[in-house]
Amino acid sequence: MHINTSEISKKLNLEEEIIKNAFEKRVISLNKYKNRKYIAFKKKLRHIERGTTLFLNDGMDVVMGYPKIRRALVLDPTLKKYFIDRVVVEEKLNGYNIRIVNIDNEILAITRGGRICPFTTKKVLKLLNMDILKDYPDIMLCGEMVGLNNPYVPNYYSEVDNTTYKDEYNIITENLGFYIFDVRNRETNMSLPIEEKNRLLEKYNIPHVKPLGIFKKEDVVEIKNIVMKLNSEKREGIVLKDPNMLVDPIKYTTHYTQYSDLSVAFKYLFDLGIDFMFSRLVREGYQSFEFKEGEKELEKRAMSIGKAIIYSMVESIKMVSRGELITEDFELYFDSEGDMDEFLNYLKELHITYVIKKREVLKNGAYRIEIGRVYSSTNDKIKGHLKGSLW
Amino acid sequence: MHINTSEISKKLNLEEEIIKNAFEKRVISLNKYKNRKYIAFKKKLRHIERGTTLFLNDGMDVVMGYPKIRRALVLDPTLKKYFIDRVVVEEKLNGYNIRIVNIDNEILAITRGGRICPFTTKKVLKLLNMDILKDYPDIMLCGEMVGLNNPYVPNYYSEVDNTTYKDEYNIITENLGFYIFDVRNRETNMSLPIEEKNRLLEKYNIPHVKPLGIFKKEDVVEIKNIVMKLNSEKREGIVLKDPNMLVDPIKYTTHYTQYSDLSVAFKYLFDLGIDFMFSRLVREGYQSFEFKEGEKELEKRAMSIGKAIIYSMVESIKMVSRGELITEDFELYFDSEGDMDEFLNYLKELHITYVIKKREVLKNGAYRIEIGRVYSSTNDKIKGHLKGSLW
Repeated sequence: MHINTSEISKKLNLEEEIIKNAFEKRVISLNKYKNRKYIAFKKKLRHIERGTTLFLNDGMDVVMGYPKIRRALVLDPTLKKYFIDRVVVEEKLNGYNIRIVNIDNEILAITRGGRICPFTTKKVLKLLNMDILKDYPDIMLCGEMVGLNNPYVPNYYSEVDNTTYKDEYNIITENLGFYIFDVRNRETNMSLPIEEKNRLLEKYNIPHVKPLGIFKKEDVVEIKNIVMKLNSEKREGIVLKDPNMLVDPIKYTTHYTQYSDLSVAFKYLFDLGIDFMFSRLVREGYQSFEFKEGEKELEKRAMSIGKAIIYSMVESIKMVSRGELITEDFELYFDSEGDMDEFLNYLKELHITYVIKKREVLKNGAYRIEIGRVYSSTNDKIKGHLKGSLW
Repeated sequence: MHINTSEISKKLNLEEEIIKNAFEKRVISLNKYKNRKYIAFKKKLRHIERGTTLFLNDGMDVVMGYPKIRRALVLDPTLKKYFIDRVVVEEKLNGYNIRIVNIDNEILAITRGGRICPFTTKKVLKLLNMDILKDYPDIMLCGEMVGLNNPYVPNYYSEVDNTTYKDEYNIITENLGFYIFDVRNRETNMSLPIEEKNRLLEKYNIPHVKPLGIFKKEDVVEIKNIVMKLNSEKREGIVLKDPNMLVDPIKYTTHYTQYSDLSVAFKYLFDLGIDFMFSRLVREGYQSFEFKEGEKELEKRAMSIGKAIIYSMVESIKMVSRGELITEDFELYFDSEGDMDEFLNYLKELHITYVIKKREVLKNGAYRIEIGRVYSSTNDKIKGHLKGSLW
């Protein structure tokens, strides 16, 4: 297929040479969703964010990538240094980042990496009223898909239990929901101010993350208290925003999140990067310092981190020693066999190795499947070491 | 200075092109000790081990690098797979690896990296009787320099307390000693069989690591018991050797070592590599699994690891927040001011940043100094984060 790099260059204001080069190096991928062709940026290139999607339609519609949100290691003095005067605190949810757009009158859900996810696209159409994107086709709804029944970041959120189907014997509940946190122009990436964003989303009755508070940037104690409360409720953390979105948001997470991340990282120890592990440990150091922990709290944190590391690792080694396969399991619901097959093909395209552990047709014709994502390096390396391979 | 790469090529049986290239890429360095010029291999190049030294003297004497010793993650079945029939267990000491050689009738101590260390060279001459190298100038004595008063790996070993000087008021004790573990031909790297090695070293009265036992390779339980005993005594671990040195030795370390390594790594968290941290954690996973730890032992190990990580990190952050400099401190003794200056110059050549914290002339004319090695990345990054830099 001929790709008009000259037109892409004009549209993105990026030299054609760079675009050609990026295609060659596979930094830009060419993809298809149904009959819709689009390219996706797998890395940030100049001013084009990672995850930017450009549709090869008449309008060459662009959906800019969601920008990386940087992190405060200590709240004080970072907030004072960083913000203008006031800070809106929103809850950070632990799911996966999605941008929803309207392209040629079709609603599409695009992942952080810039791919149209068939699973998410279909769920969004069921869960949300998309009139807002008909009225404002230039915006993108940026949000987090959360809940146990998603194929990327399965975490239970009690607030997103939906009855999928119910008869006299069974209640089948899908735990899945979507919360918008930003409304942006999809070509310029400009955000609506927080109040305006919330008014608009309320008008269209779209679920969105609500501010946990608006503070002066000096009110670090209050913000710290929010973090502590979220931690005790096993929630992920906060995103801090300028009320007018004049500076980029920054994020800060709870001990609970670091703990869970480490548990996951050391369960799949040879697959998740060591940078991932190291950064979580560093966050714990700064948090413990900033929260002025005494001997007892320090000990509690040390124990928690130690357990996240050791218990997960030993559990994985034990599994392999029993001949079991280490997988990360996802239970997903699909309305039809076609939807399910489409999604499984999509996973193959992404080169994700999986096994199907269970597959059930429900009485209403929907499908429930359990997929196990296979972490090959972890399985293979542990197997090798247990057979006597040297380090 | 002209370097005859053609001669070096012949001597090492390595293509001249490779040698020229390695000089250009600074994989081979050109160094000087007093008036003695030599080259050192900073990386393994084909069959030439990392740390190999070639002297630019008439004989072009070569001292082969000490080979990397690989590690068992589990003792069972690794030992059975790896060894022929019997296994000699020697204690692994926690100091720094040194090769002592006789070049043109001068005794020299060469570090793992292939450099002549002036500190170690002088200490070796004081601590050991070097007749053995006069009688056998082709061998190298490979061993570990241990003790608190060394500039690389300061760990206290009670067995190496030496009285440096004593009067009616003071006893000054230097904690430093040297134990040989291998006797090798310095050009071929061939090792003497263990019994022969020990007989020779005993004959010349040279301190050496003594076997903790000789086992059948199936006697994993006994070997595990040795590891547990060493752990309770806060010792580093073991090296496992074929009695005839027909297969390369392998090593295995105690929990205590992993704990101490992690404490150090997280104290200087932005300077020590994350691979260093990760590998220690992985060892803990396999050890806990192999030692079949129950809930209580698992918890104890988790707590220990968690403390090594969190306590060290928080302590470093606290230090920087108080405006203190994070350094690793070494207390060293020198016989003269000249010796001291020579060594400090050597550190500068190695691009090691240090501060002198204390400097004392003892009554017998010797010098005692405290050097603090400065970990710049750790100091700078923590300072930045505490001032509000984002991650």
